[in-house]
Amino acid sequence: MTKKIKKIGVLTSGGDAPGMNAAIRSVVRTCAFHKIECVGVYRGYEGLIEGDFKILTARSVNNIIHTGGTMLKSARSKEFRTKEGRQKAYLQLKSVGIDALVLIGGDGTFTGGMIFNEEFGFPVIGIPGTIDNDIFGTNFTLGYDTALNTVVEAIDKIRDTASSHKRLFFVEVMGRDVGHIALNAGVGAGAEEILIPEEDLGLDRLLDSLRRSKQSGKSSSIVVVAEGDKIGKNVFELKDYVEENLEEYEVRVSVLGHMQRGGSPSCFDRVLASRMGVKAVESLLEGKSNYMVGILDNKIILTPLDKAVKGKTEINKELLRVSDIMTT
Amino acid sequence: MTKKIKKIGVLTSGGDAPGMNAAIRSVVRTCAFHKIECVGVYRGYEGLIEGDFKILTARSVNNIIHTGGTMLKSARSKEFRTKEGRQKAYLQLKSVGIDALVLIGGDGTFTGGMIFNEEFGFPVIGIPGTIDNDIFGTNFTLGYDTALNTVVEAIDKIRDTASSHKRLFFVEVMGRDVGHIALNAGVGAGAEEILIPEEDLGLDRLLDSLRRSKQSGKSSSIVVVAEGDKIGKNVFELKDYVEENLEEYEVRVSVLGHMQRGGSPSCFDRVLASRMGVKAVESLLEGKSNYMVGILDNKIILTPLDKAVKGKTEINKELLRVSDIMTT
Amino acid sequence: MTKKIKKIGVLTSGGDAPGMNAAIRSVVRTCAFHKIECVGVYRGYEGLIEGDFKILTARSVNNIIHTGGTMLKSARSKEFRTKEGRQKAYLQLKSVGIDALVLIGGDGTFTGGMIFNEEFGFPVIGIPGTIDNDIFGTNFTLGYDTALNTVVEAIDKIRDTASSHKRLFFVEVMGRDVGHIALNAGVGAGAEEILIPEEDLGLDRLLDSLRRSKQSGKSSSIVVVAEGDKIGKNVFELKDYVEENLEEYEVRVSVLGHMQRGGSPSCFDRVLASRMGVKAVESLLEGKSNYMVGILDNKIILTPLDKAVKGKTEINKELLRVSDIMTT
Amino acid sequence: MTKKIKKIGVLTSGGDAPGMNAAIRSVVRTCAFHKIECVGVYRGYEGLIEGDFKILTARSVNNIIHTGGTMLKSARSKEFRTKEGRQKAYLQLKSVGIDALVLIGGDGTFTGGMIFNEEFGFPVIGIPGTIDNDIFGTNFTLGYDTALNTVVEAIDKIRDTASSHKRLFFVEVMGRDVGHIALNAGVGAGAEEILIPEEDLGLDRLLDSLRRSKQSGKSSSIVVVAEGDKIGKNVFELKDYVEENLEEYEVRVSVLGHMQRGGSPSCFDRVLASRMGVKAVESLLEGKSNYMVGILDNKIILTPLDKAVKGKTEINKELLRVSDIMTT
Repeated sequence: MTKKIKKIGVLTSGGDAPGMNAAIRSVVRTCAFHKIECVGVYRGYEGLIEGDFKILTARSVNNIIHTGGTMLKSARSKEFRTKEGRQKAYLQLKSVGIDALVLIGGDGTFTGGMIFNEEFGFPVIGIPGTIDNDIFGTNFTLGYDTALNTVVEAIDKIRDTASSHKRLFFVEVMGRDVGHIALNAGVGAGAEEILIPEEDLGLDRLLDSLRRSKQSGKSSSIVVVAEGDKIGKNVFELKDYVEENLEEYEVRVSVLGHMQRGGSPSCFDRVLASRMGVKAVESLLEGKSNYMVGILDNKIILTPLDKAVKGKTEINKELLRVSDIMTT
Repeated sequence: MTKKIKKIGVLTSGGDAPGMNAAIRSVVRTCAFHKIECVGVYRGYEGLIEGDFKILTARSVNNIIHTGGTMLKSARSKEFRTKEGRQKAYLQLKSVGIDALVLIGGDGTFTGGMIFNEEFGFPVIGIPGTIDNDIFGTNFTLGYDTALNTVVEAIDKIRDTASSHKRLFFVEVMGRDVGHIALNAGVGAGAEEILIPEEDLGLDRLLDSLRRSKQSGKSSSIVVVAEGDKIGKNVFELKDYVEENLEEYEVRVSVLGHMQRGGSPSCFDRVLASRMGVKAVESLLEGKSNYMVGILDNKIILTPLDKAVKGKTEINKELLRVSDIMTT
Repeated sequence: MTKKIKKIGVLTSGGDAPGMNAAIRSVVRTCAFHKIECVGVYRGYEGLIEGDFKILTARSVNNIIHTGGTMLKSARSKEFRTKEGRQKAYLQLKSVGIDALVLIGGDGTFTGGMIFNEEFGFPVIGIPGTIDNDIFGTNFTLGYDTALNTVVEAIDKIRDTASSHKRLFFVEVMGRDVGHIALNAGVGAGAEEILIPEEDLGLDRLLDSLRRSKQSGKSSSIVVVAEGDKIGKNVFELKDYVEENLEEYEVRVSVLGHMQRGGSPSCFDRVLASRMGVKAVESLLEGKSNYMVGILDNKIILTPLDKAVKGKTEINKELLRVSDIMTT
Repeated sequence: MTKKIKKIGVLTSGGDAPGMNAAIRSVVRTCAFHKIECVGVYRGYEGLIEGDFKILTARSVNNIIHTGGTMLKSARSKEFRTKEGRQKAYLQLKSVGIDALVLIGGDGTFTGGMIFNEEFGFPVIGIPGTIDNDIFGTNFTLGYDTALNTVVEAIDKIRDTASSHKRLFFVEVMGRDVGHIALNAGVGAGAEEILIPEEDLGLDRLLDSLRRSKQSGKSSSIVVVAEGDKIGKNVFELKDYVEENLEEYEVRVSVLGHMQRGGSPSCFDRVLASRMGVKAVESLLEGKSNYMVGILDNKIILTPLDKAVKGKTEINKELLRVSDIMTT
């Protein structure tokens, strides 16, 4: 029989993402609603080991739903990867009477949580917070929708100058292993080509496509490139290659970088975070553990953490086709 | 046997919505991709009757994916509600050889399309474009996601001044018959109460809730009100009522109005529009007619137009509960 | 001989404006730079009377430069208008050793400050914070530039829907006594007419202008109206009047309201606030009192508070003419 | 005696900047107001040589005031630097009866215009359009204010992630020869250090400053670097240098790049563009030539083109000091 939960801890770990604060707020207020205590754990697993705790009341999370970043800070912890580190963390939790943890983060965060749960039988529930949308068991991760809007707004600005000068732009966006941001933001920004890790377009087809684009009367072009695209050249090498092979193009590069991780969350991310926080806390109160909260087909559901970590998200093939048609 | 389609017309009708231009672009480029002609019909059914047509090539829709409004203009047509009007429209279509129509709009647009299809056997496919998200057969209508972001950004600004002055704000948002915008934007903006047409909170509970909110230590409050909320008082009467009954509150009103319909579409709306446009054209090419394109569970699907028109969307009960918990 | 200043208080009063937080930050950090103490006075003159004080260090104002509203809150105080109220305020200041005050606000704030200075010889310096730009002695008040951007962004959205439907919109913006926001945002938004308190266009000329606008081929129109425009009808009466007299127009109204006061300050307002805060503190340290900091011709200068309060800002006649020419 | 001007040409040249479209609109409408013809010259001096002309009426410039880029396109022309090229351009102008030119651009554009005026006595007036604000004779160039807002918004996002992770960010902004963007946006974004071409902070002082910043309790830092900063290392070398010498810092780099040139112009830039366009056309009509329109102390004035080209803008020393104080 599971022990009754009276105090829940919440932490954010890994790369920060817009919506994390909205999720923290939701966890805190759901605890308050159910009249149990909530403790904020600062700096992720590092703060867990050090006992960097603070009690959070419903009023502690006023005016944060619209802010980017994470008020609990985040960090990557080497020590938590060791048995000793996790032991310390466990003792810290026991010493203040925390009965369960809500973990907001990505793959690495969840893997840490699973091991911790396995070793100490400590109840944990994960909330997927990462702009990359690369977590199995949810259609959307927190921050992904906001990042897409940040990227298309930046490319809208770049297009102003691209079309004033008849230039070709390579715009690098985040996504080392997955192309969700590149594919969706590429379609949203009206990109001529989209290079993603899941598909190897090949340099020849890229040149063909750019030639065709020019012939069809387009005077400027945007190519969106995911960090980890399959062609394997980085975005600056791509520029050089294209300039050598397509003299008619003047090429520029823009690497959007870390601004993609910040900013005020979109309404979608705020609502999603609010829903996920409720589900996380109430699942713990129902005695559940070792799950990740996700949204599938507009319903908030649970997926076992190990499936969430091992599973692979897939690129939307229909959207690849839509992208091709749009560049007609 | 259905005749082969060689020329497709596209129009926008009813209230405009962000993403309509992205949908027009998608329809035009999908036609170009399949090497059939595309004709833009200006000013909705009014322009259809008057033959206000223009051939659109793939290049005609450059640089519109990010723009609000509709390049084809919209209008409400009384004449199209008459048999004579529709007869004229049919002759205009025949005279230039248009074989099928893509209709971008809401309920009224689709009803007109169904009658037209019934009378003349003319192939039509609808794309739901309205910020209200009140169309059955799709989780999201074009423009809805953008409108939510517009509303939360406006309320974020209002909250700055509300919390500087310890005030209560009633913010009226669009939604005469449905509360989707109010509920989602209300949760997204961290509203203390949300008044929607689907639920009658009642004036007493509203006062109770505001009293509780004050006691819990909140110094300012936002109440989001859908145009058609059930309490039946308009937003200015609500203000007076609360000021009479809760002297501790200084109350202000803000009616967000038509700015909710405009603005550059969000990435979500641009991608959705691109997918819907492809599906609309390809469905016509496959010989289908009298359907609306929708997105259900992240898949682009078809719903018979009469179901789309007769069906009712429902408010998300889980989200109502989340909203309650968040105001703890 | 003036006593050496060792502790400075800062407060915000009257309507809040974007940039107030950036000004508070600047006052606090300039104090820290000069190694004197800084005390935040909460809720304006009300908090001054009640002794609602908090010591602010350089780190207390981290991460507020980009936020709207005022972290010190604002309030209107009836008690400070009485001799007794001001006496209480003076005792509060003495009791904690505050030697001088920086007052961030508008006309009313400065008038209060002058009387207080007169009665108690207490050193005060004002910083003009109001979106209305109606303070003599400065080309720009804090928040004005941000409000202009907020207004033109809102009208850009309204224009999307106006031009999709061929409608006429009356957009009411703030400005009860002065038309700076209306005139500048009207020109910035490309309005067809601009109605301001300083000029009585007259109803006949308005109708003429709208008729001409229609004849010149414009299909939609925006008229920007300051709250206090001279025609004397409110914006809803204007709508009715135009609809009665110009049947060809479908008219809509939008009252932008309090969102104009909020939002993240523009770069201009942040820089201006930083410069003004430095000047305010250093002027006090130099023994000056009873001045307002302003910006004239890109230089930060001082104006005696009584001149600032009595003087009148004037509408830019050249800009009125530019506005006329732009509507050709 | 100057010939009466009946037809004016307008072109944009050099790097594009937000507000160029608003300036084009103003030039076109001022011509219409004075009942003279206006001709758009496409692709700068290149289009001038090729006769890439189009008549622009008041209605040709509807709905462009809020758009980034330039509807007339821009290009750099090698041929215009030759006598032959300019001769061709002159003949093109004569062949269609253009009597005078408005040139929107920067230093290079004006230099070309002066030589052209000298050789052919052809009346020209310049409007300063560049985000760099590096033109003598005007406090503000078109696009500068917008670029500042774009930069601070991007840095606000980066700060979210910086402060979540306790990181140091080097953010590179435009400005090869002048530090106006870096200094103003740096102050506006609350940067800890600002590296500009006009001042050599030196690597030692940078390290000192970062060490002090850490000791003062700041957990994250932003350093804004102008492209052409005096330290002479590029931003990636700076990162390496700091990481080697300050182990306590995890450093990241963000190069904002071309998005700084695009986007919808701020209200300030739209109003400035409208005022400058009127002045440019009316100055030509008054028989003036070889001047640049500028804004000094809020008045629209003229500066001889050669002074505008030869003069140097200076960095605001007061603002440098404000910047130092703000990092306390």
